[in-house]
Amino acid sequence: MKTKHRFLREPVEPFAVASGATADDLLARMERVSFQGRSLATARRIWQKMLADDCTIFFGIAGALSAGGMRLIISHLIAQRYVDCLVSTGANLYHDLHETRGRRHYLGSPQENDAALQAEHIDRVYDTYANEDEFIENDEWIAAFTLTLERRPYTTREYLYRLGEYLWNETGGDGILTAAYRANVPIFCPAIADSSIGMGISQARDRDASAGQVDVIADIMESANLVIRRPRTASVVLGGGTPKNFINQASVQAEFYDDRVGGHRYALQIVTDVPHFGGASGASLEEAQSWGKLAADAERVTVHADATLALPVLITALATSARDTLAARKPLRFDLSGPVMAVEGRPFPHARFEART
Amino acid sequence: MKTKHRFLREPVEPFAVASGATADDLLARMERVSFQGRSLATARRIWQKMLADDCTIFFGIAGALSAGGMRLIISHLIAQRYVDCLVSTGANLYHDLHETRGRRHYLGSPQENDAALQAEHIDRVYDTYANEDEFIENDEWIAAFTLTLERRPYTTREYLYRLGEYLWNETGGDGILTAAYRANVPIFCPAIADSSIGMGISQARDRDASAGQVDVIADIMESANLVIRRPRTASVVLGGGTPKNFINQASVQAEFYDDRVGGHRYALQIVTDVPHFGGASGASLEEAQSWGKLAADAERVTVHADATLALPVLITALATSARDTLAARKPLRFDLSGPVMAVEGRPFPHARFEART
Amino acid sequence: MKTKHRFLREPVEPFAVASGATADDLLARMERVSFQGRSLATARRIWQKMLADDCTIFFGIAGALSAGGMRLIISHLIAQRYVDCLVSTGANLYHDLHETRGRRHYLGSPQENDAALQAEHIDRVYDTYANEDEFIENDEWIAAFTLTLERRPYTTREYLYRLGEYLWNETGGDGILTAAYRANVPIFCPAIADSSIGMGISQARDRDASAGQVDVIADIMESANLVIRRPRTASVVLGGGTPKNFINQASVQAEFYDDRVGGHRYALQIVTDVPHFGGASGASLEEAQSWGKLAADAERVTVHADATLALPVLITALATSARDTLAARKPLRFDLSGPVMAVEGRPFPHARFEART
Amino acid sequence: MKTKHRFLREPVEPFAVASGATADDLLARMERVSFQGRSLATARRIWQKMLADDCTIFFGIAGALSAGGMRLIISHLIAQRYVDCLVSTGANLYHDLHETRGRRHYLGSPQENDAALQAEHIDRVYDTYANEDEFIENDEWIAAFTLTLERRPYTTREYLYRLGEYLWNETGGDGILTAAYRANVPIFCPAIADSSIGMGISQARDRDASAGQVDVIADIMESANLVIRRPRTASVVLGGGTPKNFINQASVQAEFYDDRVGGHRYALQIVTDVPHFGGASGASLEEAQSWGKLAADAERVTVHADATLALPVLITALATSARDTLAARKPLRFDLSGPVMAVEGRPFPHARFEART
Repeated sequence: MKTKHRFLREPVEPFAVASGATADDLLARMERVSFQGRSLATARRIWQKMLADDCTIFFGIAGALSAGGMRLIISHLIAQRYVDCLVSTGANLYHDLHETRGRRHYLGSPQENDAALQAEHIDRVYDTYANEDEFIENDEWIAAFTLTLERRPYTTREYLYRLGEYLWNETGGDGILTAAYRANVPIFCPAIADSSIGMGISQARDRDASAGQVDVIADIMESANLVIRRPRTASVVLGGGTPKNFINQASVQAEFYDDRVGGHRYALQIVTDVPHFGGASGASLEEAQSWGKLAADAERVTVHADATLALPVLITALATSARDTLAARKPLRFDLSGPVMAVEGRPFPHARFEART
Repeated sequence: MKTKHRFLREPVEPFAVASGATADDLLARMERVSFQGRSLATARRIWQKMLADDCTIFFGIAGALSAGGMRLIISHLIAQRYVDCLVSTGANLYHDLHETRGRRHYLGSPQENDAALQAEHIDRVYDTYANEDEFIENDEWIAAFTLTLERRPYTTREYLYRLGEYLWNETGGDGILTAAYRANVPIFCPAIADSSIGMGISQARDRDASAGQVDVIADIMESANLVIRRPRTASVVLGGGTPKNFINQASVQAEFYDDRVGGHRYALQIVTDVPHFGGASGASLEEAQSWGKLAADAERVTVHADATLALPVLITALATSARDTLAARKPLRFDLSGPVMAVEGRPFPHARFEART
Repeated sequence: MKTKHRFLREPVEPFAVASGATADDLLARMERVSFQGRSLATARRIWQKMLADDCTIFFGIAGALSAGGMRLIISHLIAQRYVDCLVSTGANLYHDLHETRGRRHYLGSPQENDAALQAEHIDRVYDTYANEDEFIENDEWIAAFTLTLERRPYTTREYLYRLGEYLWNETGGDGILTAAYRANVPIFCPAIADSSIGMGISQARDRDASAGQVDVIADIMESANLVIRRPRTASVVLGGGTPKNFINQASVQAEFYDDRVGGHRYALQIVTDVPHFGGASGASLEEAQSWGKLAADAERVTVHADATLALPVLITALATSARDTLAARKPLRFDLSGPVMAVEGRPFPHARFEART
Repeated sequence: MKTKHRFLREPVEPFAVASGATADDLLARMERVSFQGRSLATARRIWQKMLADDCTIFFGIAGALSAGGMRLIISHLIAQRYVDCLVSTGANLYHDLHETRGRRHYLGSPQENDAALQAEHIDRVYDTYANEDEFIENDEWIAAFTLTLERRPYTTREYLYRLGEYLWNETGGDGILTAAYRANVPIFCPAIADSSIGMGISQARDRDASAGQVDVIADIMESANLVIRRPRTASVVLGGGTPKNFINQASVQAEFYDDRVGGHRYALQIVTDVPHFGGASGASLEEAQSWGKLAADAERVTVHADATLALPVLITALATSARDTLAARKPLRFDLSGPVMAVEGRPFPHARFEART
């Protein structure tokens, strides 16, 4: 009987409608409902704990978030240092750049005739359109920027810092790349070759065979060294993909060189994939524990939802409830301006994994 | 070139974080993002149009919404007449009754050991627990109530009205059944035999072989007559299942007897199933047009999301923005107290489809 | 180290392509792959165990299986007694009847213009079309049949037996209803009011107010008594919905009256829904254990796949590997011809739950 | 009426169970069922058409296919030249290497306790286990191999060719990497930095700062040049991810430099993601047309299924039905042994996009 009561301690509290309630109110009350409503409320609570704890927060973004209207939420998270290091697909950075340069994505319909769109050079992402001619012009812009760089290998971290700087100087516009540049938050893009940014870089190479050298292997080392330098980490992931795996890989690789590393202390993912097909995007956070990607006692939550629906609610609420925590937070200070990155004034070793300090 | 501009008219407007924003603010800005975030905002807009139009709004609920903390949102929608007729699974009404009777559901974990729960008589619904012993006691209560009724067939509509009345008289508690009773909103439960309410009724039958007569065929006739009486209809569905189909069936059946009926004028569904497996729960609203379940020009939106996440945001926003519309709305007045139901004082034909008026 | 080896005992055996391999071969080798390939192979093994064991096999079918070309697989399973009792949605029986009566469903496209289809009276189910005019004619046929019955309540079990008989006598055609009639396999349709069969019955009622009496509560009692009579049961479910729940409910209700009942000994489900939204269709078989729907040590498997893909492979393989087991199987013999059903010559109690024998 | 008949031409043919049927028989009959069963049969038909046509077939693989027992199917497709160019995630190549080196993956359970697995150094992928200590040893092996290479940038195409060669010489074992080496089929791995292969390379760099140079930008150029050289292409994708996008990107990039390129002529994808969340993995093939990734009149099919279930059936059937077509096929002959790749004896331009020939 004792055991039974152990299971039946916290009742579900039916959500009561209150006109005028804020996002903060909503999530406070959704802590006591079930299923993905509760998961979203839990996500807010766990993120807030990360912010209050002394840890490095990795933030992975996949899916068409920038095209879909989420890029200013992401730039807010960077600028206000809800996160310490961004790992992104190339597409999210490219669509961000597209808008920071003053172009737009457009509201469309998933039922539109695609042959008609093709004829008009309009690219569709589900219910969203883009002008392909503008994309072609972006690629040239990226090629031109790339040709301004030195003829030596760049990590994606250094390349994207310079890209953000160039974009900021040209546009003064708000966005993911410019916010990361201004806040000195590193961005890694492990699959840069699988994106329009990579295509733009390849067009620079086409003009100058020594241009566009990207050193993705050094990215692996920098990201692992980041964990070795400060082994308490957290992972926030939207949508799976390469960012999700890269963040976990950094932790696993770091552990190989330093046994103080024991997996992320907190993990939060907003995904639409499911675990039972074996893909990494849908993998559960429980499974991540077996790999040591996550500490065995890590606080964790998976929200099974589309980020375009979940994120506006989550971050609006967090902006209210985490205000004081954020103000008190002392985020890592990075220097990203050269081939050798520094944290809190101390450079990272170059081209090797950092020894235990 | 003209055509091209036709496609690129309304830009995506990146969502900007505003601490303290209300649900109403959130959805206003989510109208201009993409994917399911936009769908949710569109759902609010379409529901508001339904309320402003002269139409009968059917509301279908499937999935574990009551156990999951959504029952007071649903009772609010009934009491405030955002909807005119509820179609429900038995489980949602049963779990509502459970809480209105003072019992609770509990916050649990999807990772709990189910053999341990079984040993303790705890029933799990994903991350939510219930005390099975209390469920057994509910069944008896339903049997006892059923034995108070006359020994004649009841539509589920009449049966559930009486159940709401009995529950209200005993508890004075707020919930779906009691709100529908008090607001004279009809509830149909086409699959009542596939639920614990059906099980409770069968236990009444066990004690008295003439008890517990349920006439589900007359439900079909009443629901179609409801459409025939006022052929402008709308459909709001959470989660698919029998409620989704029953609401569409009413429209199709009505059309057979009256060609003024031309399918729902508005349709809104919040579902997690997908169309490509052919199941009715996931069927698209486009497909529904081929059947004439939906008018060919109906305004419609599908939100691919868990209702426990989407509904609190949607209804909190709607409660603000639809206030005036609701105040001006003149909802249908029902008399549900007898075997023959009446709308606006005029009884429905008994056991036949209403002729064209 | 010992423990480690315990986990690493059975290696994955990469599937090697063998031209000309039979379905039986395929599944034999898929036992050693991962994810849903393995699940399908496991499903074959578990079904075969059910057949070899002394148990009553319930079979639930939801989704558009009949329209989608699966009805002769289902009739094969009934005729050859791979299963002992069918629980179906109305739609699957209706679409079966449609084809047994010589009408067809048609290959179509999910991208077709639905307004155009509506104009032509063509109903679309994802990539499949039907002629709505023929559906209307079916409804009349069902009404006419219903008017041949006595003016008293029928369980869906008795009604569907008579429907199968009538259909067989008229058409001599193969299908689900006719196979069940000929093999004396009971069919329950708990949500009959939510289907075109229900609509046809309501049209009979429209002509004669005393026609079309369906007693769905007695269905609950008969299905529970079936479990009480022989408490070793198994559950095979395609697609969730009301059939999945009704089969579990029979077990739970039976347990209330007889504590020898301890949940299904075997469970197999082929579903496309997922557990994390709390709906019954997607509920895991682990969760079912907490309710006692499933024995705590039951052999079980969930195949996350569309049944139109999984079923042809699974049953073709099973037809080979289970041949001897089927030949040796002594399935329950039912008499379904009257209001009182009999098993092995012994009638079921009427309108009460059977006492422990 | 004419129009109506146009829609109702090809009836669904119910699948009839035939014990002993081969995979070839199964798919022949599944052409006439609905939903994903039909999609799988259509996939076979379209792949066969690709093989009969004069086109270059790109093959993308994502998800845990190698760990899940699919690697010998993939190596069969390479060796028998069902495909001309592989694009893979790093994980699939790594898990392939793991088994070719004589290690195994193991059958496990998705319900296992992950903290226990972590304690034993066992990594879980849904229902599959691997020995983490063996993975660590693989990483060292990859580092050692990498140190045998010249100290200059390698495309992933050249790197993986050398890796396959080294692996073949050491093990003589069958697998994806060794089959591609022996058949001279190029492999691209655009996200190599996001995988254990990348981690192994980084460990080589750790020992020698000039080792492990990977030139992912040149991969973009080689893949686009491959399309420019022979603009008729087809795309077969399992599971989405970077391979799906990289294959489409090659087509889009090539079109920028050569307007004879007009998108893939055939497209086949087996995916579990859905379009409505906007992610690239789930994007529909219709959407791909708007981008020009796919020709407007391309034959195409999406199979919504887990590849571990669909692929064994599909390829076993194709192995039978495509035998003659394969024998007659004249696949592209590659020379992959140097930094400059050649097709049919003619080298590709180095570090620039090929001019129109």
